[in-house]
Amino acid sequence: MFWNEIRTPAALVDLDRLEANSSRISERVRKLGAKLRPHVKTHKCVEAARFQIRGHFGGITVSTLAEARFFARAGFRDITYAVPIAVDRLEEAVEIGRSIDALHLLLDHESTFEAMSACARAKGVRLSSFLKVDCGYHRAGVDPERDESVALAVRMARSEDVDFRGVLTHAGHSYHGANASEIKAVAETERSVMARFAEKLTRAGAPPPEVSVGSTPTISLGNSLEGVTEARPGNYVFYDRFQAAVGSCGIESAAFRVLATVLSHYPERNEILIDAGGLALSRDEGPTHIDPDCGYGAVFSGDGKSHFASLRVRSISQEHGKIQGTSPIDYSALPVGTKLRIVPNHSCLSAALFDRYHVFRGDAAVGEWRPVRGW
Amino acid sequence: MFWNEIRTPAALVDLDRLEANSSRISERVRKLGAKLRPHVKTHKCVEAARFQIRGHFGGITVSTLAEARFFARAGFRDITYAVPIAVDRLEEAVEIGRSIDALHLLLDHESTFEAMSACARAKGVRLSSFLKVDCGYHRAGVDPERDESVALAVRMARSEDVDFRGVLTHAGHSYHGANASEIKAVAETERSVMARFAEKLTRAGAPPPEVSVGSTPTISLGNSLEGVTEARPGNYVFYDRFQAAVGSCGIESAAFRVLATVLSHYPERNEILIDAGGLALSRDEGPTHIDPDCGYGAVFSGDGKSHFASLRVRSISQEHGKIQGTSPIDYSALPVGTKLRIVPNHSCLSAALFDRYHVFRGDAAVGEWRPVRGW
Repeated sequence: MFWNEIRTPAALVDLDRLEANSSRISERVRKLGAKLRPHVKTHKCVEAARFQIRGHFGGITVSTLAEARFFARAGFRDITYAVPIAVDRLEEAVEIGRSIDALHLLLDHESTFEAMSACARAKGVRLSSFLKVDCGYHRAGVDPERDESVALAVRMARSEDVDFRGVLTHAGHSYHGANASEIKAVAETERSVMARFAEKLTRAGAPPPEVSVGSTPTISLGNSLEGVTEARPGNYVFYDRFQAAVGSCGIESAAFRVLATVLSHYPERNEILIDAGGLALSRDEGPTHIDPDCGYGAVFSGDGKSHFASLRVRSISQEHGKIQGTSPIDYSALPVGTKLRIVPNHSCLSAALFDRYHVFRGDAAVGEWRPVRGW
Repeated sequence: MFWNEIRTPAALVDLDRLEANSSRISERVRKLGAKLRPHVKTHKCVEAARFQIRGHFGGITVSTLAEARFFARAGFRDITYAVPIAVDRLEEAVEIGRSIDALHLLLDHESTFEAMSACARAKGVRLSSFLKVDCGYHRAGVDPERDESVALAVRMARSEDVDFRGVLTHAGHSYHGANASEIKAVAETERSVMARFAEKLTRAGAPPPEVSVGSTPTISLGNSLEGVTEARPGNYVFYDRFQAAVGSCGIESAAFRVLATVLSHYPERNEILIDAGGLALSRDEGPTHIDPDCGYGAVFSGDGKSHFASLRVRSISQEHGKIQGTSPIDYSALPVGTKLRIVPNHSCLSAALFDRYHVFRGDAAVGEWRPVRGW
């Protein structure tokens, strides 16, 4: 099938770009001396994960237990579920863990540690868990400056029910960076906070087997992983408009795009209507800290080769997308029915809205990939 | 199954609230003297649509051809697809139309009219279409003040291939209203623009069989549908935080809520982590024109009965939701593992993220509903 025969809106993956993105981060992490345990939540499909682990030890990171189950069934043997687990889902984790070599969990609260210990005892297993650390993003994780955080790590390290796997963080505040140098600074914070905390735990008698970090901006731009043992970037496989804005990549590296069709013209407003709305592009606001008028997507020609920099997806509702021109639109070049390829602000959230991805190498369709959904 | 046994995040529908919301709008539209052709895009499931059409003629409105196909198969015989159709999907519309009494399409561009005429001729059918009119929202539709708009309606009315079904608008700018009186003003504009345009078309020899309007705020709050023949609200079945903010309903009327679990506590930041993020609540920004700090959801107790007005979902990422307190959080009342019920900003976008809804009457589970997905 040729790309212009696909019913829209549709999710398109460019395999050449995906491989290039994957190889770049793979080599980068190797040079920086860490293991790569890529996150698969951006695409949630087996085929893309296989590109990510090529040449590495095979471990992956997931964002839901549904992903853990799906990738375990597909043959992935070493999985980290990188969200603090809900205490009433521990038994599911035991089941998934039994089917593979290792399922590593996360905790950052005493109650979860206690529930995990109780579940492990009841099931006659040991549960492997990281201690989640807050390196400045302030979303989840223990404060590495507090004595209670050290005490919790020590309890984990001494536990007979929980295997203390190490410390793990995500510098999500790298997404707030306005340029490469700001992101490099966050990357250095992420690394140094974790390295220092690991040293502190070692002195306290709880040396962390793993020191795990990772966000696509910090791994794309950071210069050192000294004191870190593994990196967990994920978005880089697809990249997106946000990553391009903060400097992780160029916009042309975006391997995931939404194919849309021009539905109508409104010359009186210098606008075009397309059939990709919030249920195709997601309502992620994008890099508004860099460009308050960024809208909801960068517009490319249907073949994905030309960036129409003077067009942007100005607003979206459920199934409508409104493209506005920053200069007068040449409507004769974009008749009703024209296909456009949109790079969404946030590929993770847009990709999750589709049940399948149409995969292309150049103009040639090479298959369909099916992501896992739900929790 | 009891609500607190459901794995989270999960979509919960409260049937008593849904029926009350449905009855309220049903009676309102009847009193205002119009037919009700409810939109089903908010829930996309057969069961909720059946409540909506109770006591009315049975026609519905959909936002995708996938919905049209799904509801046609479920026995709905009169369907309006209320997005200007992509010209390369006209043949699908013919197929769906053949399976039911009537599938009405939309157009607002000469090219689409010509493609529709050509497709109808090629397939040996007549295609029924509304002329989409812009009553001030400026998303889609012809400008009712322009002569070209009248000319297009006249071409439709005289066509041998297209059945001119009438004129249709959606006052989406009612969502920009800050209170009930502003929305009443938009409702009056929606009605009067359409009534006047219909008169103009009648004088021009193209009397519109139907004059169709509809948005949940304008139908919830408007006082007249004089000159209008049918109303197409949809969100009212579920309502949501946005509708409550603009005055369409009270927040307690929200029939769709996301069940979430408390994952951790951060007393140093007066925050709680839950397992409902952007893939459960959607990243719809909500009524920021009324409350710039509204965040991503209103927080209720797990049974849905108590509104925790001092808690709000402050930020979300893919699978994390961060609740912040506007006063000190009583953590002892919300231990790790506690269930919370979140009213999302925009129920249409949140509901579309789930493959099933758990349906309750009070505390009793009464079934699961499966929405249609895709396009």
